[in-house]
Amino acid sequence: MTVNRQVLLAEKPKGKLALSNFRMHDAAVPAPKDGEVLLRVKYISLDAANRAWMQGATYRSAVDAGAVMAGGSVSEVVESKANGFAKGDLVFADTGWQDYAAMPATGLIKLPRIEPMTHLLSVYGVAGLTAYFGLLRVGEPRSGETVAVSAAAGSVGSLVGQIAKIKGCRVIGIAGGAEKCAWLKSELGFDEAVDYKAGNTYAALKAAAPKGVDVYFDNVGGDVLEAVLPLMNLHGRIACCGAVSAYDGAPPAAGPRGLPGLLVVKRLRMQGFIVMDYYAQSAAAIAELRQWVESGKLKVQEDVIDGLENTPAALIGLLAGENRGKRMVRV
Amino acid sequence: MTVNRQVLLAEKPKGKLALSNFRMHDAAVPAPKDGEVLLRVKYISLDAANRAWMQGATYRSAVDAGAVMAGGSVSEVVESKANGFAKGDLVFADTGWQDYAAMPATGLIKLPRIEPMTHLLSVYGVAGLTAYFGLLRVGEPRSGETVAVSAAAGSVGSLVGQIAKIKGCRVIGIAGGAEKCAWLKSELGFDEAVDYKAGNTYAALKAAAPKGVDVYFDNVGGDVLEAVLPLMNLHGRIACCGAVSAYDGAPPAAGPRGLPGLLVVKRLRMQGFIVMDYYAQSAAAIAELRQWVESGKLKVQEDVIDGLENTPAALIGLLAGENRGKRMVRV
Repeated sequence: MTVNRQVLLAEKPKGKLALSNFRMHDAAVPAPKDGEVLLRVKYISLDAANRAWMQGATYRSAVDAGAVMAGGSVSEVVESKANGFAKGDLVFADTGWQDYAAMPATGLIKLPRIEPMTHLLSVYGVAGLTAYFGLLRVGEPRSGETVAVSAAAGSVGSLVGQIAKIKGCRVIGIAGGAEKCAWLKSELGFDEAVDYKAGNTYAALKAAAPKGVDVYFDNVGGDVLEAVLPLMNLHGRIACCGAVSAYDGAPPAAGPRGLPGLLVVKRLRMQGFIVMDYYAQSAAAIAELRQWVESGKLKVQEDVIDGLENTPAALIGLLAGENRGKRMVRV
Repeated sequence: MTVNRQVLLAEKPKGKLALSNFRMHDAAVPAPKDGEVLLRVKYISLDAANRAWMQGATYRSAVDAGAVMAGGSVSEVVESKANGFAKGDLVFADTGWQDYAAMPATGLIKLPRIEPMTHLLSVYGVAGLTAYFGLLRVGEPRSGETVAVSAAAGSVGSLVGQIAKIKGCRVIGIAGGAEKCAWLKSELGFDEAVDYKAGNTYAALKAAAPKGVDVYFDNVGGDVLEAVLPLMNLHGRIACCGAVSAYDGAPPAAGPRGLPGLLVVKRLRMQGFIVMDYYAQSAAAIAELRQWVESGKLKVQEDVIDGLENTPAALIGLLAGENRGKRMVRV
């Protein structure tokens, strides 16, 4: 415990994110000050939003060149100089991509010890809560309605579709590739799956949603959003969770066609949200998610990669859509 | 009472609407069937939406070439074969642009006789109710917040800004031309006005809204929406009332930049609405509007043009933004 390996954002990507945008660095293990804890990072969460943070300030400040790459993790307290935290406690923290981090106790979220620990980053973590609150509070699906979700094989989308099924909806997943689409139907119980890489997403969606779409949970923005918009039913709701299509590479020249005209004609509501706005209600949500998981109604798909040094490649792969379910790195 | 003058949509416009898209036609005055009334059209309402109806089905079916141009009017019953309607009754009806129309009683909205009658099409009609419900129910402004409205000198926008002032908001109007902007401030009491024709709307809006925008009442879409989006505050609301920028001429190639990414980052709600969804609550709204008008808190600006034959030119002028307040044609 003398070396703290770190992954630095060596330079901000100008186009697509590449391995050359990162470099490894050996630092000293930091000493916690009063009010701080020293954390050993266990699992780093990988999320498309990591890429958006490199573009500029979002709901958090931008990650600058030369800094440790930012990211949330499940970490264990190895030394505490803060009230309320003891050695062995598990926390969720924005440690960044490194072995150790000294952090102020404020801003740490204490986690229970559950097995497998990885569920703290998937179904009981940001992904699960994003799916839960975004679908139920922003999308507000009613039984019998049709729900569509993009990035459906991803960490959030795979849960959104299953929760919509639990709520009695007809569910259409939009994902890249025939294999993922088959998996959504056979393993996760989606009613239909549309492969956006197969071309003509609009026609495929129209065939999959003969009664139109009432709730669209949007993780991607761009062309897929443009394809869904004309299929939305009167008084439909679009829960805007992310815009992955705009994160990696040049920023898109313009927004989806049909906005805002189609919102008016169809009286649609399109609402952005970020899970942290709902943290005060997490306990009840996690209790319900646990019930679904433990009764077998909600399947949790995880994609765990070993080794801090593999985190850059893991994020690049996630942005290319190679993961199924929640991707994370075991440090 | 033997000739019924009609304005026909001779052919659908391919680009900008022109006088040549219309022609006058003399028909016979129709005879009402059982369950119908014969209406004498008094005032025809002109609205940007009239142009959108020519593009295709919206919240109503498209207006086809050769048909009487559609449009709402205040009309008087001259002969009734329907229960509940008598000669002399005033109604709001989708008569289209003509002297007379025979219409089924279903779908007619009975109106009180008030003076001036034109107020039935402006502040107590679709324009007033659109401003009232769109601002208060969709925009949900709170006292002290900043409200921006586009097409601010128009029939709806001029009321939206004044109602927002009544509710204790700081109000920024966006309109075309220095003269309209000066009028918004000096006559209607707007705090600031931005001339979108002067160039760099974003910078002008930023200067006018140092604390950002909480509610944007959007009548236009397009470039102005794109300029407002980055200035929206966290948890802001965009009430989408129309997209005038997309109605006349070639359809826009794409939507406003920044959608849906900015909705996510700022947790914005963007919601389309159409006034008819709120008709069940009209009576209470009109009562409140009357109180504001009669106490001098709400100024009603009307732009009345004489002669059915001038209706096409009046609509073309409205689309070019030449009106202030509610434009209508006295038949």
